[in-house]
Amino acid sequence: MRLRHKPYAKEKLAEYDQYVVTEALGLKGRWQERFGNENPIHVEIGCGKGQFIINMAKQHPEINFIGIELQTSVIVTALEKQIEEDLPNVQLLQANASDLAEYFEENKVDRIYLTFSDPWPKNRHEKRRLTYKSFLKVYETILNPEGELHFKTDNQKLFEYSLVSFSHYSAKLNEVYLDLHNSDVTDNVMTEYEEKFSKKGNRIYKAVLTFDSSE
Amino acid sequence: MRLRHKPYAKEKLAEYDQYVVTEALGLKGRWQERFGNENPIHVEIGCGKGQFIINMAKQHPEINFIGIELQTSVIVTALEKQIEEDLPNVQLLQANASDLAEYFEENKVDRIYLTFSDPWPKNRHEKRRLTYKSFLKVYETILNPEGELHFKTDNQKLFEYSLVSFSHYSAKLNEVYLDLHNSDVTDNVMTEYEEKFSKKGNRIYKAVLTFDSSE
Repeated sequence: MRLRHKPYAKEKLAEYDQYVVTEALGLKGRWQERFGNENPIHVEIGCGKGQFIINMAKQHPEINFIGIELQTSVIVTALEKQIEEDLPNVQLLQANASDLAEYFEENKVDRIYLTFSDPWPKNRHEKRRLTYKSFLKVYETILNPEGELHFKTDNQKLFEYSLVSFSHYSAKLNEVYLDLHNSDVTDNVMTEYEEKFSKKGNRIYKAVLTFDSSE
Repeated sequence: MRLRHKPYAKEKLAEYDQYVVTEALGLKGRWQERFGNENPIHVEIGCGKGQFIINMAKQHPEINFIGIELQTSVIVTALEKQIEEDLPNVQLLQANASDLAEYFEENKVDRIYLTFSDPWPKNRHEKRRLTYKSFLKVYETILNPEGELHFKTDNQKLFEYSLVSFSHYSAKLNEVYLDLHNSDVTDNVMTEYEEKFSKKGNRIYKAVLTFDSSE
């Protein structure tokens, strides 16, 4: 994603602290308070400009959605959408995926969406891919035992890598789509990236997995 | 594959019993005797007309190849290729994949190739797919603990199904190719099917897995 310098962004994030959390350590274990209910929590890692999380939240008012994005100049666009929509079941969190266990208690997240994350194609950057085993460990920790990871990408190499990584982590692959937009899935909600790259003719790949090892 | 009635086929299989085994129970544990050496044994399940196994055997004289095919009218074509080539490291076996544990001792096979098997697309035929768990159990039994299953298909739905089946069986996926012919694999040997369907523009999928649970 091309990053534009947005000098106003940081101030805006601070101004709308009812929608966006930039320092969440104090919120660990207190997300339900912030939402004002005990609905399930779904987290999107890398929510970008927020199209997916906002549309999901509209379709599923019974779910609390937390969009996580590190880049100030990107998350501010998601914030602008939320200012417009004012959805009670959307929160934004500016954080790094590797730190998620600092923001969520164990087993407290019901689903994680990992959408079109950076493929980091060079082998020496393997550890930065969000499906590397150290990240899977974080997801397993914060997800409840039946909680699912929903992973979408148009990057073939990242998807291949991820399938192998999931297997070696002993995650259970429950669904896999090698061409999501030509599958029998009818309730897919697209991200900005997904719209753009599927229009170019790229296949969209999806995997759904769990970490429950008691099976 | 279109099956042609070949009235001479059964006689031909019987005539060339130095190349083809139609009743192998007596051979369990005695394949090395039949090959006259102790080289590794690679098995192709569903060898069809034999192009893959014959070409692999030419490239790898240090490996013993056993091509397994149930259909009389198909395996006879593989036999005709072998009569022509007379390769010392090729044997054919007319058998059903579900019965392989009757033909091979535990841990005695070094690699299994599963190539372009019938996708059995209807849900009620799931148990016939050669990547269904009951077949994986057979493969695990006859493969040595480091032995690999190499699975190739052009059928997207079968590949999706198989990735899920492998995962739930706790097999370890070591390599996956979502477009084998446009990958960095340079030593791929094509089957008849693979040539035909890749010419039509179908993607070829490949997975390499092991069943070693001691990892």
